[in-house]
Amino acid sequence: MTIPERILMGPGPSDVSSRVLRALAQPTIGHLDPAFLLLMDELRDRMRAVFQTENEMTLAVSGTGSAGMETLFVNLVEPGDKVLVAINGVFGGRMADVAKRCRAQVATVEVPWGRAFELKQLSAAIAQHEPKLVAIVHAETSTGVHQPLEGLADVVHRHGGLLLVDCVTSLAGMPVEIDAWKIDAAYSGTQKCLSCPPGLSPVTLSPRAVAKLDKRASPVQSWYLDLTMLRNYWGEQRAYHHTAPVNMLYALHEALAIVLEEGLPERFARHRAMHERLRDGLAELGIEYVSQPGRHLPMLNAVQIPDGVGDAIARRRLLDDYGLEIGGGLGAFKGVAWRIGLMGHAATARNVDLLLAALKRTLVA
Amino acid sequence: MTIPERILMGPGPSDVSSRVLRALAQPTIGHLDPAFLLLMDELRDRMRAVFQTENEMTLAVSGTGSAGMETLFVNLVEPGDKVLVAINGVFGGRMADVAKRCRAQVATVEVPWGRAFELKQLSAAIAQHEPKLVAIVHAETSTGVHQPLEGLADVVHRHGGLLLVDCVTSLAGMPVEIDAWKIDAAYSGTQKCLSCPPGLSPVTLSPRAVAKLDKRASPVQSWYLDLTMLRNYWGEQRAYHHTAPVNMLYALHEALAIVLEEGLPERFARHRAMHERLRDGLAELGIEYVSQPGRHLPMLNAVQIPDGVGDAIARRRLLDDYGLEIGGGLGAFKGVAWRIGLMGHAATARNVDLLLAALKRTLVA
Repeated sequence: MTIPERILMGPGPSDVSSRVLRALAQPTIGHLDPAFLLLMDELRDRMRAVFQTENEMTLAVSGTGSAGMETLFVNLVEPGDKVLVAINGVFGGRMADVAKRCRAQVATVEVPWGRAFELKQLSAAIAQHEPKLVAIVHAETSTGVHQPLEGLADVVHRHGGLLLVDCVTSLAGMPVEIDAWKIDAAYSGTQKCLSCPPGLSPVTLSPRAVAKLDKRASPVQSWYLDLTMLRNYWGEQRAYHHTAPVNMLYALHEALAIVLEEGLPERFARHRAMHERLRDGLAELGIEYVSQPGRHLPMLNAVQIPDGVGDAIARRRLLDDYGLEIGGGLGAFKGVAWRIGLMGHAATARNVDLLLAALKRTLVA
Repeated sequence: MTIPERILMGPGPSDVSSRVLRALAQPTIGHLDPAFLLLMDELRDRMRAVFQTENEMTLAVSGTGSAGMETLFVNLVEPGDKVLVAINGVFGGRMADVAKRCRAQVATVEVPWGRAFELKQLSAAIAQHEPKLVAIVHAETSTGVHQPLEGLADVVHRHGGLLLVDCVTSLAGMPVEIDAWKIDAAYSGTQKCLSCPPGLSPVTLSPRAVAKLDKRASPVQSWYLDLTMLRNYWGEQRAYHHTAPVNMLYALHEALAIVLEEGLPERFARHRAMHERLRDGLAELGIEYVSQPGRHLPMLNAVQIPDGVGDAIARRRLLDDYGLEIGGGLGAFKGVAWRIGLMGHAATARNVDLLLAALKRTLVA
């Protein structure tokens, strides 16, 4: 097996530090070993710290970010529930798809790709539909758009619903304040700003969301993702549910330690500084963002592919000549946009300057 | 993070070799990187070799064995379908639970825990129910029972159904002949006889099962486990679905290489020889099996806890004094049975003899 040397500046996975890789490769032990249970407790505390929450129900789902998304929908939606999904990119669309598969009555509110929602527009849709659940993406990985969330939960709660947020790309790269923003349910992924390999999804549920779970009339349609059972393994009972992905949990435990050692404010500032450095360099190359001004994500820079440049050819050249991975566009932005990630361990001046130099040569050639 | 030194002789996870741990810790690369796509193709070929199948639809689900179980049910069952589940332990019971959550009409056929089914009994139940799907466990991890499967598919097919088999514990430790036995759908887990960390589930579907999938009238209820989309990532289209658990797939790629280097017949013979060595040693200690004579699994030895021995205390002493993990009983066998695993890398004479010596001292003390 020959793994080439890469620098991962796409939409994820991001570069993983050697500390995390070493943790990943520690010998596997049992999922009920007392030493492992201690590690899980520390892991939960660290997840709570990064989510900025005191939520008791905070755990890592044994699957990637999309499994975390599905976990929250299958547990919080019952057949016939009205769900409002905000769509301005691929991942909002995916949430609507998942909600339909849970037999929810799905309504959507949409703005064009590359735009963020205004609170006014969301409030009007909530007042119109009175949904039991409102789902929105904090950092839309397909468009590079940051969706501000302050004030939204109050509106959702006033109409009797829960607020569910996709934090896959934002967590540990920009503020995600679960408790301060009164978010009821959120999921993330390990392979973005946490700089851990893909394979786990940290999730957190507020007491309000847990109350909804406790009052379900129907069983959760997924056995694997059923939080009414998973909480008995992650909680004090330690009841066996499925065999936990032990080594991946080692890696997440270490990745979270690195995040907390750096400090959340410092980490957010680094992501922002690297984003500005990249943005200024791209401007010099005449490359423009596809996302709305003022709403660019620091860790996911979605930019227009320059005129006359072959999308796949240019990305392949970056990969072959420099070992640099950037992402192509998804959905409506396929062939239109590139997605340049500055996530976690990869968000460094060295990487930004190398990419700018490589882009300059690649676009000229 | 301090990981204690263990020898894993429980029901899984099993010991992972340093080769596999090294593969796991290779730098993460992108899930659409050309080098990674090559690795996936090799991985599929290796999974087919170990499953002894030519099934095109053979892939690794991004979750543990239970996710593989759920994958097959959500894809192959439509609401209202009649499903017959054979239950003689925890994992048969789990399959019935999962099938109900897919809104199947579930019928069961049962024998007491510790017993295997006779073909005659299964045939009678199939003739009675005419199920669209028959689900059975090949190696029941909760009871240590081997279920012979020869001849069963013919009966299932004659009545118009598909045969789904749980091979979580058997794969790579005893013969699992998907094509020769005409099995339509099977799932396994990485953390048993493959000796890879937990986190992935190899699955395979026959053309007959794929035809059923293609004819579905309703969408698959799980987005994450939807094979109609997953096959477009594992197949030639390479369409993005979710971010693959890259490092875990490295590890499985290496673990399968080790299995195939040893050779399947040689590997099965080793498991059998170690089982016999353990069985003879346990007999000398007066420890008896809870599983039916002639149906003991080589890799999972379910034995009666000797009279007067404290279950948790004895297992804790093995762990603390020797770093040896064996498993407690599950469900009806909790407090009644121990489960001693001899899986993959851990199935060695050194481990068997150490465990026997440790048991002797622990039971006397």
